[in-house]
Amino acid sequence: MSVTEKLAEFVVNADDGGLPEWAIHEAKRTLLNLLAISLSASRSADARILIDWARHEECAERAAVIGVDLITSAATAALLNGYLAHLQDYDDTHFPTVLHPTAPVWPAVLAAAEVQGSSGREALAAFVLGAEAACRVAMSVHPWHYDAGWHITGTAGVFGAAAGAGRVLGLDVAQLVAALGAAGTLASGVREVFGSHGKPLHAGHAAARGLEAATWAAAGFKASDDIIGGRRGFWAVLSPAGHSEQALLGELGDRWELKMNGLKPYANGVVSHPLQDAVIELRNAHSLQPDEVASIEARVHPLVLELMNRAEPRRGLEGKFSFQHCAAAALVDGAGHHAQFSDAKVADPVIASLRAKVSATVDAAVEEDEVYVTIVLKDGRRLETHVEHATGSPQNPMSDLVLRAKYDALAGEILGAAHAAKLWQAVWTLDEAPDVDTVAELMQSSGD
Amino acid sequence: MSVTEKLAEFVVNADDGGLPEWAIHEAKRTLLNLLAISLSASRSADARILIDWARHEECAERAAVIGVDLITSAATAALLNGYLAHLQDYDDTHFPTVLHPTAPVWPAVLAAAEVQGSSGREALAAFVLGAEAACRVAMSVHPWHYDAGWHITGTAGVFGAAAGAGRVLGLDVAQLVAALGAAGTLASGVREVFGSHGKPLHAGHAAARGLEAATWAAAGFKASDDIIGGRRGFWAVLSPAGHSEQALLGELGDRWELKMNGLKPYANGVVSHPLQDAVIELRNAHSLQPDEVASIEARVHPLVLELMNRAEPRRGLEGKFSFQHCAAAALVDGAGHHAQFSDAKVADPVIASLRAKVSATVDAAVEEDEVYVTIVLKDGRRLETHVEHATGSPQNPMSDLVLRAKYDALAGEILGAAHAAKLWQAVWTLDEAPDVDTVAELMQSSGD
Repeated sequence: MSVTEKLAEFVVNADDGGLPEWAIHEAKRTLLNLLAISLSASRSADARILIDWARHEECAERAAVIGVDLITSAATAALLNGYLAHLQDYDDTHFPTVLHPTAPVWPAVLAAAEVQGSSGREALAAFVLGAEAACRVAMSVHPWHYDAGWHITGTAGVFGAAAGAGRVLGLDVAQLVAALGAAGTLASGVREVFGSHGKPLHAGHAAARGLEAATWAAAGFKASDDIIGGRRGFWAVLSPAGHSEQALLGELGDRWELKMNGLKPYANGVVSHPLQDAVIELRNAHSLQPDEVASIEARVHPLVLELMNRAEPRRGLEGKFSFQHCAAAALVDGAGHHAQFSDAKVADPVIASLRAKVSATVDAAVEEDEVYVTIVLKDGRRLETHVEHATGSPQNPMSDLVLRAKYDALAGEILGAAHAAKLWQAVWTLDEAPDVDTVAELMQSSGD
Repeated sequence: MSVTEKLAEFVVNADDGGLPEWAIHEAKRTLLNLLAISLSASRSADARILIDWARHEECAERAAVIGVDLITSAATAALLNGYLAHLQDYDDTHFPTVLHPTAPVWPAVLAAAEVQGSSGREALAAFVLGAEAACRVAMSVHPWHYDAGWHITGTAGVFGAAAGAGRVLGLDVAQLVAALGAAGTLASGVREVFGSHGKPLHAGHAAARGLEAATWAAAGFKASDDIIGGRRGFWAVLSPAGHSEQALLGELGDRWELKMNGLKPYANGVVSHPLQDAVIELRNAHSLQPDEVASIEARVHPLVLELMNRAEPRRGLEGKFSFQHCAAAALVDGAGHHAQFSDAKVADPVIASLRAKVSATVDAAVEEDEVYVTIVLKDGRRLETHVEHATGSPQNPMSDLVLRAKYDALAGEILGAAHAAKLWQAVWTLDEAPDVDTVAELMQSSGD
């Protein structure tokens, strides 16, 4: 058997009931996270370009687009939902590879499940297996592939999307090998387009192509027997500097890469996340008001200054690369969502004034997900804390409570609190649902 | 200006009226060739998989699929027409790079022109410019890129499709740079899937993605400024072993790569084409019947025996890799279309008997597009000929008359002679047509 066949066999033959319950729970959490950030992204002009185009295509109504009043073809819905999920760079991260597994995989699984009428449990299991496939393909070419310039979310993502959708569609092993072949030969996305619409397009492309490949394979489409390991396949052509069969196939079903996947609590660069954790912790513990604060002093990992030292950001996007802004917004709003990085928020005089009081010194002994913070108050008090592992790192996963707060902030803004709560509940009980229709219905919004 | 901007500027600013008339004529010929082979392919089970899927999508009716009764979204039509055009490996070839430019470019241009209501002349010019873009991108990475395992028709093709569709949609330079960025970051297709549905999918994928990218760019989609030459762009990531800026941009508008593009007279591997030319020449000159022939002896380039020495093919596809079958079918039918490579044709006793009388000896002095053939008749006569350059090579382009014979055989079989003749006429006068609607209408068939 080829390595592609071995991977396909795992995905096809894994028993729904045998999957670890924590993984099913994590699948719900990644879906809630995806819904929150996609809803938040759905109102932007960046989203509007593809939404308007998809509406214009007027395809038969088979799968829903998140955040808007649009039901379209399964592939088009997958394309848009993958794009929305990655548009704010606020989706989850597989720490070992910087793959973002949810954005390519869930949209493919969800659209396939809508078409197929799958149960909620089947969809959750398909996500777990599709995400595992994406992460395993990513692990097998890490770090050579990303270093060569590939955006691994697009390239490994398309394998995960095909595996997840193929699982939903009930493909047999030979069919899934064909689906992986048709999807894998279209694996693409280069880092050159980072910072443009091209980056989220990679996730949407992966979702749509994976779904199409699975759909076609069910109808008899054939590709090669070993798209991953073949002489002119994925490893040979897209990662000539190296690959690992062990990383692809070792301990399949025992070791789960989803364990190494983290949800982001803040919509900015990950290196300042510990700082934001610390500020919010002290803010909440002491009910701090901005005008009480004399200074915020941090001891940080060197990367914080290297990547995010920008004392006077002028636009919202620059705020995402300013640890000073991240800390100030964390103290004022207790959050770091996309809303904290608007142009208006960056220009806000209260935040600007606080930003000037934020400083950081480098300490080589501090880890990347660690920070020491002291907030000095005008009354002379010194409040200190130490964050050992930032929220969202594998050692400190985001709690359900923090996820709920993120979800409420982002989904609530678009859907309203009551509607958002219903959608949360529908996902939280998805493993008992006869289908994914309630989720698909509630994730739409007629307000777009 | 980046190299991508320079290429975009050429495509945007080239004057319709300033294009050489031979190129407009060649654009018509490539379209007729594409229609002939796509019509022939449209009835196969391989085609049916995607046609049935596209029908099921039920998108708004904006662009026609060749050979069937189906009008669908522009991108879906481009996908299917690109797939059909490359399904029989019977499309044109850019000799220096083995890029097949028409299959990715014309379907994108045609669908865009149907949507846009462009004139026939505009569509023809857009093809010429799109094909030039595809060939130039291919030349810029030749031979490193193909040698690394990439299917250049998919990877370079998507640039040509975006350029051609972008030209039709009237993009400005900045928009076309964005379109090339969105398309180019999805450049894909590895040679691992050769021999499967994956190969023609590359052409369809390139056509569809190029068209979508141009459509989105017109609506404000942004990508990087230099997808081709950027630090993590096409050259760096998909051709790290080498690239040539001179090949991409040198003498743009003076030297045309379309000059180096040949139409295939036979649906099999190109190395036995001179042999088929020779056999058909002698057959027609002497009205030869199979039972008159004692032997067919050829002096050939070494590749003929290396790639196509198969004395007893068992299936149609094997016939395409048997010089013996190619020569026998050429003598019996005077042709080498897809019909000459059916399972039934390979099993035909007259052809099988003749096949046993075909032999070849290698002569290192014979060029790849050259052959010496002697047909010995049972009455003792020896008929000899020398083909210096096979039909379809740059030194001996297929004549309009031979193209017409190919077209009549393939298109006539599907549409009937009268309908096929009308379509030929519509393409032949396309430069005077107010739009492409007549071609789009006539290339369909209600008989599918």
